[in-house]
Parts: sequence; structure tokens; C-alpha cells
Amino acid sequence: MSLSVKSSTLAPVPRWKPGARARLQEAALALYDERGFDHTSVEEIAERAGLTKRTFFRHFSDKREVLFGGGAMAEEPFVAAVREAPLAAGALDAVSYGLTVLAAGFDEEGEQAARRFRIVRASPQLWERQLIKFASLAEAVERALRGRGVGDPAAILAAESGITALRVASDRWVADTKEKPLRQLVAEVLAELRAVASPEASHDRP
Amino acid sequence: MSLSVKSSTLAPVPRWKPGARARLQEAALALYDERGFDHTSVEEIAERAGLTKRTFFRHFSDKREVLFGGGAMAEEPFVAAVREAPLAAGALDAVSYGLTVLAAGFDEEGEQAARRFRIVRASPQLWERQLIKFASLAEAVERALRGRGVGDPAAILAAESGITALRVASDRWVADTKEKPLRQLVAEVLAELRAVASPEASHDRP
Repeated sequence: MSLSVKSSTLAPVPRWKPGARARLQEAALALYDERGFDHTSVEEIAERAGLTKRTFFRHFSDKREVLFGGGAMAEEPFVAAVREAPLAAGALDAVSYGLTVLAAGFDEEGEQAARRFRIVRASPQLWERQLIKFASLAEAVERALRGRGVGDPAAILAAESGITALRVASDRWVADTKEKPLRQLVAEVLAELRAVASPEASHDRP
Repeated sequence: MSLSVKSSTLAPVPRWKPGARARLQEAALALYDERGFDHTSVEEIAERAGLTKRTFFRHFSDKREVLFGGGAMAEEPFVAAVREAPLAAGALDAVSYGLTVLAAGFDEEGEQAARRFRIVRASPQLWERQLIKFASLAEAVERALRGRGVGDPAAILAAESGITALRVASDRWVADTKEKPLRQLVAEVLAELRAVASPEASHDRP
């Protein structure tokens, strides 16, 4: 069943071949890892994937979108979960509920999500874009909290705190050898956030 | 002693005239307010200030720097205060100590600081830059906390929470008719942050 040997004798891969998007994504991440994002061109990504530049642009508007394209997909279930958290949940608990859903999605995607985040973290230009994404995610969560009747400034504080916890947990997820799922790291960081903000912490030595 | 009448009969203002920086700043803020940041040129700023474009560039590298140039000055006393907060202060208290110093500086500067912030808030491009500045401010505070022996992730959580409180308080300061000093707003927002993160809040209805 050695298909790879057979296929090497065939004509170039046709453009309609299914899975093009996934192959482009895989090729792009491999090249960003090897050469860095700045030193990778769309031509090289298409070539590595065995596809044309035109096919690349049918799936992505530019080489950044390979990294950020999935963000919008992740945002909606997250915000929906915040909206639909049990009525009795406080503001930060509702955010925590949403973060669990978001983190579970990343955990399911596994290594590719971690690689994407690692590449973004390594480039100041991409990291700035990520910060803007985090800010707009926080705004979406804030709106969802207001929809639950959370007032001002509790809504923005809970939203921003949750996004901070997500950032810190993602950093750990990517830096550590991924021994813990992101979902668990988010829960741990949120617990530490509560400890840092608790009035008792004020009187402890650091 | 009507110097202004006399001076109108003199040659154009010499370039070494003292106070050039402040006059350029004032002219720039007035124009950004009137026309928007994007629709103001360096030529127009210099003309309004009665100075040359060349003088402008001796004081500022570009028209954004008029708004952000003061940031570095504000960062140092803030971070120093975090570093030098009483040893017994917890992580978030040390940040709160620093924020008081920072806010007092803005309160002293008064209306011009509020106008600057309002202009930045109104432009998506400037606001992105401000978000990046907030992020680097948070990193500086985090380092200061680590220097105090605060561990991981308490240092980053306290730093980010403090910067979030600063953002929220600044928004209120600028939006409201400035009936309260920024310093007081920061203290109020920090108290609300503690309430949002407290375990009891989890069981309250929002």
C-alpha cells in the first residue's frame, strides 16, 4: 500500500484536490517554524504544499491569515458560552465557563494550535496583532456579560481578567511540554487570579 | 506690559524661542480635536504654533509622538513606586501604590492629559498603539514585581490587573466631566476588581 511511491510518478497534484486548506496550513506552519514568519513567502508555502499560489489565495488573504484565520471560529462558541452560563454564575464565573469551552477547542486541536501560538509569540509584529485580537475578544465578552445584566465596570473587569488568564495559561501551555491540557491551566490561573485579588493577599508578604 | 502687541511688529518668531515644544503640543492637540488626527499634517501644526516644520522635527519624530512622547516619562516613576512599595504590601497592593503615583501625575497635568487620551481613544490606529504601550507597561510592572520576590503567575496577573484598572479608570476620567480625580477613579476601579474576583462574587447573581 505504498501510495507515496506510486504518486511520485503521477502528474502534479490537481488544484481541486481536497484538503488543500489543511495542507497549506501545515506547510505554512512548518516553514514559519524553520525560517521564521518574516522569511517565508506565499510562493514557498504553495510549493511545499504542492499547490499553486493562486490556490493559496483562494483559501487565505495573506500569510498572516494562516495563523489568525481560526480565531473568529473560536470566538463565537466562547462568547456564546459566556452568554449561556448558568444564571446564578457571577461575572468572572461566566467568563470562566466560556474559557473552558474555548480551551477545550484548543486542547482538541492539540499540537497545531500550540505551534500557531508559538509562532505568533516569537514575532513582535504578529504578537501586536494577537494583542489586538485579545482586546477585541475582551470587548465581545464584555458585551456578553452586559447582556447578562452585569454592570459597569464589573463587566469590563471580569472580561479583561478572563482574557489575561487565557494569555497567561496559553503561554504556559506552549512553554511547558504540554503535560497539562490548556483547560486545566486556565482553571489554575483563574484560581491564582482570585488569590492575587483577594483582600487577604494585601497583608501577606509577597 | 502688553508684550503681545509689541511682538506683532517684530520679525517672525526665532526658532530658538523658548517653549516651542509646549506650543507645538498645544497646536497639535487643538488641530487633532478640530479635524481628527488623520486629517492633520505636521505643516499645519507648525503653522498654527507659529514655528517651522523643521522645529517640529527637532522636538518630535512624527505627529504621533506628540501624543505618546510623555509616556516614557510617566512609566519610570510608576515602575519605581511599584518597586519601592512597602515590603509588607501584596502584589496587587504594590501595583496600586504605583498607580497612585502615575494617576497623580496625570491629575496634575489635568485637561491636557485628558485631551490626549480622548484623541487616542477616538482613532483605531492610535488606540492600537496605546494597547501596545499598555502591554509594555504591564511587562515593566511585572518585572518590578518579580524584583520584589513575587512569583509566577502572580506577578503577571497583578501587573495586568493593575493596567486593566488603569485603562478602565482612564476611560471614566475622560468620559465623565472629570468631577473626580483619576487617582480616586483608579482606587474605585481596583476595589471593584477585588469584588469581581472575590470567591463570594461567584455565588451572587450578577
